[in-house]
Amino acid sequence: MTSDLAVCLVSGGLDSGVAAALAGREYRLALLHCNYGQRTEGRELQAFHDLADYFAVPEKLRLVVDLDHFRRIGGSSLTDRARGIPAGEPGPGEVPSTYVPFRNANLLALAVSWGEVIGAKRVFIGAMEEDSSGYPDCREDFFRVFNLAIELGTGPGCEIRVETPLIHLAKAEVVRRGLEIGAPLHLTWSCYVSPGPEPCGLCASCRLRARGFQEAGVSDPAGGGSVSE
Amino acid sequence: MTSDLAVCLVSGGLDSGVAAALAGREYRLALLHCNYGQRTEGRELQAFHDLADYFAVPEKLRLVVDLDHFRRIGGSSLTDRARGIPAGEPGPGEVPSTYVPFRNANLLALAVSWGEVIGAKRVFIGAMEEDSSGYPDCREDFFRVFNLAIELGTGPGCEIRVETPLIHLAKAEVVRRGLEIGAPLHLTWSCYVSPGPEPCGLCASCRLRARGFQEAGVSDPAGGGSVSE
Repeated sequence: MTSDLAVCLVSGGLDSGVAAALAGREYRLALLHCNYGQRTEGRELQAFHDLADYFAVPEKLRLVVDLDHFRRIGGSSLTDRARGIPAGEPGPGEVPSTYVPFRNANLLALAVSWGEVIGAKRVFIGAMEEDSSGYPDCREDFFRVFNLAIELGTGPGCEIRVETPLIHLAKAEVVRRGLEIGAPLHLTWSCYVSPGPEPCGLCASCRLRARGFQEAGVSDPAGGGSVSE
Repeated sequence: MTSDLAVCLVSGGLDSGVAAALAGREYRLALLHCNYGQRTEGRELQAFHDLADYFAVPEKLRLVVDLDHFRRIGGSSLTDRARGIPAGEPGPGEVPSTYVPFRNANLLALAVSWGEVIGAKRVFIGAMEEDSSGYPDCREDFFRVFNLAIELGTGPGCEIRVETPLIHLAKAEVVRRGLEIGAPLHLTWSCYVSPGPEPCGLCASCRLRARGFQEAGVSDPAGGGSVSE
């Protein structure tokens, strides 16, 4: 544990909850949450604050940012109310309709801007390449190159680099890793569709989560059901 | 002239005005403007719409986005009202206090998100490496690497790459190039300080602009004065 700061992108989901817990073992946490017009904005924000409270992150190290222009930009079933969120998961090689174009670049750029000002050393993001293979901005190569852009595009004193501790894990491994380190999985929210209090249990994100817990052999402390095909 | 779209980042300044004019010779224009809490926000937005009107860009291909979290993030004299904007220019090798941390990465990421949705082929930005050598996110290398991040982080159908047509020009050359192609220099606004109608004439941006026109041997059609040392 150093006194160095890490900015963690925390959507409020399972992955970002575990990523933040991992970051918190080595760094002081600064948590960043973005509303970007997604349907479950309010419920995700609640999960963010629940996690921030759990990690005892002071107010000045929480940043909540509205990127509601993503709704205006559209191009994703997550933000575009005229498109339905598909039940089930996309086929192999397919970019899911829930892909928000180049979203992670926007989130990382923002995290780096904040991190540069507060003198952070790291930016953590809970992206997973395998379980979200259809999202191009979740690939390890993307993050590797983004780190070069940070090195070139920030001031001389800035040493930020992006860490992706979950990048090679499958969902069940994230669950196991989270349990191992005592991450507050019960406070996380993954559903793409329901505004709360219960997840829909049908969307791709609910299914992926449910299968993760099932494969890990534990029940979901946030109350998600099992996978129904 | 193709029917392909290019997203141009248009602050409303001299450089973005010339960059957009250059882009408009080859592409249909989609113009993006960001308010990020800078002092001259209102005047810059006016310049943006003046330029968009001049280029006859339809409303649906104009996007104005509020990134006012940059004011909350701070770290720059451009957005932090508690800090003064220095008169004159920074010393060699110095990062100017007007540097907004990693701003260009945020602007480019947003431009790419929009561009991916509307099917654009290019993103134009009027960055200049030499006349803004203190801004790390104005280096050609930064843009080169950002292009790799775009290639890796966007969907399979997306061919966007960033173009920086002014990257190796000095300010006087931008003025000359702008005059050569008939860019509407009279509609642009460069001042960092004044809310209008007249530029302050003293800030680094005013001085750089005035010197550019002086060296190009023409008077500034937007009415900027000459450089007083």
